[in-house]
Amino acid sequence: MAAEAAEQPAAVAATLEALRPLRADLAALARGRDHVLLVARGSSDHAAVYGRYLLETHAGRLAALAAPSVATHYRARVDLSRSMVVAVSQSGSTDEIVATLDWARDAGAATVAVTNVAGSPLAATADLVLLTRAGEERAVPATKTYSAQCVAMAVLAGALGADPTALDPALDEVPAQMARLLAERRGVEQAVQVLARAGEVVVTSRGLCFGTALEAALKLEETCLRPVRGLSYADLRHGPIAVVDRDVVAVVVAPTDGPMLAGLTDLLTDLAGRGARTVGIGGDGGFAAACGCPVDGPALPETVAPIALAVPCQLLAEGLARALGLDPDAPRGLAKVTQTDRPE
Amino acid sequence: MAAEAAEQPAAVAATLEALRPLRADLAALARGRDHVLLVARGSSDHAAVYGRYLLETHAGRLAALAAPSVATHYRARVDLSRSMVVAVSQSGSTDEIVATLDWARDAGAATVAVTNVAGSPLAATADLVLLTRAGEERAVPATKTYSAQCVAMAVLAGALGADPTALDPALDEVPAQMARLLAERRGVEQAVQVLARAGEVVVTSRGLCFGTALEAALKLEETCLRPVRGLSYADLRHGPIAVVDRDVVAVVVAPTDGPMLAGLTDLLTDLAGRGARTVGIGGDGGFAAACGCPVDGPALPETVAPIALAVPCQLLAEGLARALGLDPDAPRGLAKVTQTDRPE
Repeated sequence: MAAEAAEQPAAVAATLEALRPLRADLAALARGRDHVLLVARGSSDHAAVYGRYLLETHAGRLAALAAPSVATHYRARVDLSRSMVVAVSQSGSTDEIVATLDWARDAGAATVAVTNVAGSPLAATADLVLLTRAGEERAVPATKTYSAQCVAMAVLAGALGADPTALDPALDEVPAQMARLLAERRGVEQAVQVLARAGEVVVTSRGLCFGTALEAALKLEETCLRPVRGLSYADLRHGPIAVVDRDVVAVVVAPTDGPMLAGLTDLLTDLAGRGARTVGIGGDGGFAAACGCPVDGPALPETVAPIALAVPCQLLAEGLARALGLDPDAPRGLAKVTQTDRPE
Repeated sequence: MAAEAAEQPAAVAATLEALRPLRADLAALARGRDHVLLVARGSSDHAAVYGRYLLETHAGRLAALAAPSVATHYRARVDLSRSMVVAVSQSGSTDEIVATLDWARDAGAATVAVTNVAGSPLAATADLVLLTRAGEERAVPATKTYSAQCVAMAVLAGALGADPTALDPALDEVPAQMARLLAERRGVEQAVQVLARAGEVVVTSRGLCFGTALEAALKLEETCLRPVRGLSYADLRHGPIAVVDRDVVAVVVAPTDGPMLAGLTDLLTDLAGRGARTVGIGGDGGFAAACGCPVDGPALPETVAPIALAVPCQLLAEGLARALGLDPDAPRGLAKVTQTDRPE
C-alpha cells in the first residue's frame, strides 16, 4: 500500500497526459445530454462523488450517482436518451457495474468507462474509455487508482465546462503537491497516535472534498478493521452530532479555499466543544489553528484539492494499520475485486 | 414519541386522502421534465430515498438526491428546465432546503414542496404543495411525519407512472397494517434486549426499503445516543463487512417480496457466520428463519412496504431508549428544526 501510494505523482501525471486528448470526444459524446449519471461502488464511488460535485459546480452540468440495483435487480425501464452514464471501476470487472452500464446503453445513454484495466468487460461495453494510467494495483486498499480516477473526473468535468482547459493550471500542480505530501508527512505521526487511542472515529467534510472524506473513512476502516463513519458535515449536524463526545476522534478534511472552509473551521470548534479530539487534514492557517492535530494538505484550489488530499488520508490509514500491528496491504475479509451479490 | 407513532394509521390515511386529488396537477407539472431531483435532510432525506427508488422502479422516471451545497454554497448555474425539483421538509423552515428550492426555481425547475406545515416558507416558494396531514409533531425524533412523507412520495411516483391508480390497492392497506404492527409488537421486546447489549449496531437493506433502513439507523442513534450506521447491503459487502464480528448487532430491513429479498436473506446468513447477532425486520418466513431475532413487518408489497416498516423501527428505537433509561422524546443535543450552518 505504501509503495503504491508513493507512485501517485507519476500515476496522476500519466493519467492526465493520457486523458486530456479525449476531451473533444467527451464533449461530442455529451452533446444533447443534459445530465451525467455516475455508476460506481467503494473507492470508485468516492471518486464519482468528487466528479458529481465538480460537474455541477464547475461545468454546470447536473450529475447524480446511480443506484445500480435499479438496473440489476429491478430492471427498471428508464429513458436515458438525454443521459451520459459514466461507470467507474478500477478492475472493470465488478459484475453489477458492467451490468448497469449495459442497461444504460440499452436505455439510450451515451456511455463512458473509467477503468484501470484495458480490455476489461467494462471497457468493452462503453462508447468511450477513460483508461487511468495507475499501473497494476495489488494492495487491496485502493490508493493510486483512486487519485487517478479523480483525475479522470476532473478531465470529464473540464471537457463538459465552458473552457475545457480552465482546470489545467491547477491540475498541472497536483503531482508535485502529492510528492511533497508523501515526502514531508507533516502531522501524520501525531494524528496516527490520536487515532490509535480513539473509541469512535468519524470523518467529515462537505462539497468537493466530501468524496475524499468518504474515501478516508473507508480506508481507515479497511486497513484498521474498525468501524469508521464518513458523512457530510451537514448530515453530521442534522442528528449524529448528538453522539459526539470525548470518545470520538473527528477527522475533518478541508480545502485551503472555497465556500466550505468557514463552515468546516466552525465545525472543528463545535466538535472540540463537545469533547471530541479533532484531526484536521488540509485547510488554511485558521483551520489548522482550530484543530487539535493538524495534518498538512496540498496547496491547491478546491477544484482539484480532493485529488491530492487523498495522500494524507492514505498515510494516516497505512500508519494506523502498522501502529495497530495489522497488515495494511491485505486486510482480513476483503478481496480486490468485490462482487455485491453471490453468483447465482 | 410513542403517542405520535401511534397516530400513524390516521396520519397516513388522512395524507393519502388529501394528496390523491393532486395527482393530475403533479402529472401536469412534470410534463416535459424528464427527471426528478429531491432535496431533503435527515428523516426527510430518507423518505426522499424511498421516493427516488419508487420513481425509478415504478414510474420509470429518473430521480436523484440533490446536494444542497451546490445551490447554497457554490451557487452553481445549472439548467433545470427539464427537472422537477421536490423539496421535503417536515417544518418547511430549514433554511438550506428553502434556499435550494428557490435556486431550483430560478434555474428553471418545476417545484414541489412536501411539508407538514401549511404556510411555511417552503410551501410559499413552491409551484405545488403536497401538505402531509400528520398533525403537529412535538417529539424531536420524527415518526408520523416520516411515514406521511413516504405517502407523499408514493402519491408522486403514482402520479408520474403510466397508471396513476396502480399503487392504490396497496396504499389502501397501509393504515391497517401499521395499526396491527403497533398493537401486536411481535418480536420488539426481544430485539430491544439484543440491541441493549450491542457493542456496535449496523442497519442495512437495499432498494425500496433502503430509505427506511437509514431512518431506522438515525432513529436508533437519535433516541439512544449511540453511533449507528445505516448502509446498503451492497456497500456493506463492499468493504465494511470486514469489520463485522461478534460485537456487532446487524439489523436487516426487508420486504415480504421483490428482487431484494433473496439477497437480504443470504446476507443474514453471512452476517451470522461472522459472529454478528442479527435482528430481521419484516421479510418472509425464510427471512425470519434466517435471523437470530425476527421482528414482525407489514404484509404489503415491496412498493409500499417501506411506509409501514417504519413502525417496527420506531418501536425498537423507543423501546431501546427506555431500556437504556433515556428520554426518547427529547434526545440530548438535538433541536426539532435543524439548521446545517450557523446564521451568518
